Amino acid sequence: MNDIFEKITSLAKRRGFVYPGSEIYGGLGGFYDFGPLGVELKFNIKQAWWRDVVQFRDDVVGLSAAIIMNPKVWEASGHVSGFSDSFLECTKCRKRFKIEELEQEKEKKFICASCGEIFEGKVRKFNLMFKTSIGSTEDSASVAYLRPETAGGIFVNFKNVLDTMRVKIPFGIAQIGKAFRNEINPKDFIFRTREFEQMELEYFVKPGEDEKYFEEWLERRLEWYRSIGLKNIRTYEQAKEERAHYSKRTVDIEYKFPFGWQEIEGIANRGDFDLKAHIKVSGIDLSYFDEEKKEKFIPYVIEPSAGVERIALALLCDVYHEEELDSGDKRIVLKLHPKLAPYKIAIFPLLANKEKLVELARRVFNKLKEEWFCAWDDRGNIGKRYRAQDEIGTPYCVTIDFDSLEKDDVTVRDRDTMKQERIKIKDLKDYFSKFL
Amino acid sequence: MNDIFEKITSLAKRRGFVYPGSEIYGGLGGFYDFGPLGVELKFNIKQAWWRDVVQFRDDVVGLSAAIIMNPKVWEASGHVSGFSDSFLECTKCRKRFKIEELEQEKEKKFICASCGEIFEGKVRKFNLMFKTSIGSTEDSASVAYLRPETAGGIFVNFKNVLDTMRVKIPFGIAQIGKAFRNEINPKDFIFRTREFEQMELEYFVKPGEDEKYFEEWLERRLEWYRSIGLKNIRTYEQAKEERAHYSKRTVDIEYKFPFGWQEIEGIANRGDFDLKAHIKVSGIDLSYFDEEKKEKFIPYVIEPSAGVERIALALLCDVYHEEELDSGDKRIVLKLHPKLAPYKIAIFPLLANKEKLVELARRVFNKLKEEWFCAWDDRGNIGKRYRAQDEIGTPYCVTIDFDSLEKDDVTVRDRDTMKQERIKIKDLKDYFSKFL
Repeated sequence: MNDIFEKITSLAKRRGFVYPGSEIYGGLGGFYDFGPLGVELKFNIKQAWWRDVVQFRDDVVGLSAAIIMNPKVWEASGHVSGFSDSFLECTKCRKRFKIEELEQEKEKKFICASCGEIFEGKVRKFNLMFKTSIGSTEDSASVAYLRPETAGGIFVNFKNVLDTMRVKIPFGIAQIGKAFRNEINPKDFIFRTREFEQMELEYFVKPGEDEKYFEEWLERRLEWYRSIGLKNIRTYEQAKEERAHYSKRTVDIEYKFPFGWQEIEGIANRGDFDLKAHIKVSGIDLSYFDEEKKEKFIPYVIEPSAGVERIALALLCDVYHEEELDSGDKRIVLKLHPKLAPYKIAIFPLLANKEKLVELARRVFNKLKEEWFCAWDDRGNIGKRYRAQDEIGTPYCVTIDFDSLEKDDVTVRDRDTMKQERIKIKDLKDYFSKFL
Repeated sequence: MNDIFEKITSLAKRRGFVYPGSEIYGGLGGFYDFGPLGVELKFNIKQAWWRDVVQFRDDVVGLSAAIIMNPKVWEASGHVSGFSDSFLECTKCRKRFKIEELEQEKEKKFICASCGEIFEGKVRKFNLMFKTSIGSTEDSASVAYLRPETAGGIFVNFKNVLDTMRVKIPFGIAQIGKAFRNEINPKDFIFRTREFEQMELEYFVKPGEDEKYFEEWLERRLEWYRSIGLKNIRTYEQAKEERAHYSKRTVDIEYKFPFGWQEIEGIANRGDFDLKAHIKVSGIDLSYFDEEKKEKFIPYVIEPSAGVERIALALLCDVYHEEELDSGDKRIVLKLHPKLAPYKIAIFPLLANKEKLVELARRVFNKLKEEWFCAWDDRGNIGKRYRAQDEIGTPYCVTIDFDSLEKDDVTVRDRDTMKQERIKIKDLKDYFSKFL
């Protein structure tokens, strides 16, 4: 497992998907920077989600709340008092672990997973929220937190949306944005980090209809993963004792990572826990009034909550292939769904020093990039350029050669089949429109 | 001025563009939440920028660095020691002001702009960066900052991009993301906030070619504002004493807000200040080697840096119109460029209780939303629905009426001209493709 995961993380760094955060300063644990390819991949994932969850429906609206909210939001939600982790520190090497990460010896002694020391456990707690302060001098500043999840911003704006968007139950509010957790042990590359991006939907329903909509959203989300080509997923139904205290039901969507099955999305029936908590602390009425039935109630909420980086990592693992070619060479290819691929088409002038070839290739490039994000590559032999594009998942390569100058056609090469076709330049847009 | 600005901010809240942050908890100064319409407007601005600055070029790549970086990044950039504001506190009402906000009396006395008290000035300094700490207990935690600008993430990744993307000078790295500043007096609605989103490009050039590229980017950025239909802008050349110490030249692009001409973007020639500073503190060689000319140098950088919320606010102000209709009624209309409008098309079944009308309208809606983000409205009379869509800038409204059932055509109404046309349902996609 380590071998393949190492290959994937190494490719991610080498080809500009993911860089360690602040690398020239020795990095910063749990923080990553997304390079030119990674930012496009993440953007394409987010856009596919937003289209499916918001724009293709007429019962979901979007939102983008601030990362820093009034601290009362997190008092009401229970995060200030309860969003904490317990940890143990090895008395010898000072490394810290969650309890479940350590093997226990008798009499409350633990075996350090790093140095092997057997030490007496002294469990300490700490809140996972990053704290900061607002205001102009420290003495008068007020404490605030970086949001540990985006959902809070949605509940706090429930009434605003109700008052301004003329929505009717059932309806949803969706949000994509960063969240922060001061994890004890960030790990598994971009799987568990301290700064990450969430895609969350809170879908408000009438109590009693919650189970029906839970099923609908679970099916819809699985369908979405199928639509972006992610295989190797399964659902995991959380047992009562695993669920958060407010959850009536939670199903995780898990991906089979090289380091094991892990959650990439959770779908929870949160009941009316959140709205009730905010009603209690804010004193504002957050109930819903059904005009037709003249009924007032506090909606239940179904929450599909997914992690952007986790999906990106799952995709990288899922589409990574090493293939033996007829020539005996090996190629690495990312078989990303075309709508997720950073570049859709790569344009190659056969030779970089032939002005006429480059000029025609430029024209093809300029024409295609009106519609799709295209790469330009004029270095090395064509075989090497194919390998380079395969490695970053570009679905099509277009080569402009000497024949192109006479016949106004080009070679289009398919990433997955490696088949090549000659296509007239004037037909290229129609040709690609069928696939992209 | 206050009248028109109040109308615009009120529309922004009433129609779901902008809500005060954490409103049910009494808000949080300097923080705003973007509602269903605002999130689409901001997204469309960011996408238009990204397409123009990254995807339509082959010399600029994207990046998305973490908000929390190694604190050494901000030591090197000078933010830890120098990114501070001076303020004065009124001894009576305790309100705080920047020095330039107060009128000065003789003998270092100031007149409070809030309560009028004349008080003795005691200038205090504080750093504008939000501080937090990383790690599992406060005693061992290390200080970190929320980035005060996105540019830092770009300079720190200069070498990563150079090593993995095969870019050649001149080339740029672009980034869109949140930044945070602990402003003393956030003001003017979403113009000066504590959490905001930046669109920054660092364009690396050979020293000596910096002035030429400065001119190119200034022109290109002005052209971009024209392309999104923003009028009432001007450039402002900063005098030497106004510029940051490292800047060889700075030109602001200003918009004529109801509260005065204010910067929405700054274009700066930062020379080699940033790369040199990071070389010094990190000890890593960040110079560029020109393979062809066998020359090694530290690039200069041209930085166009724009604020997403500032552009959004400028747009709202710019496209807000009140028009007297022939009927004597008044209409409010946002004449947003179609590519920025949150909804592109609104679909109206003439009557909500006629099943056949609704069914046909649904079909039109489902067909059009494959291509464009569409609104659905079946409430009230058609005139009111037009007014409602005008107010949020929807370029086209499509009404399905009884004639539609027989003739398979619909009424398409243009937001700006208010002219109506009958269009066959099968031709709708082609029709709108011309405009959207």
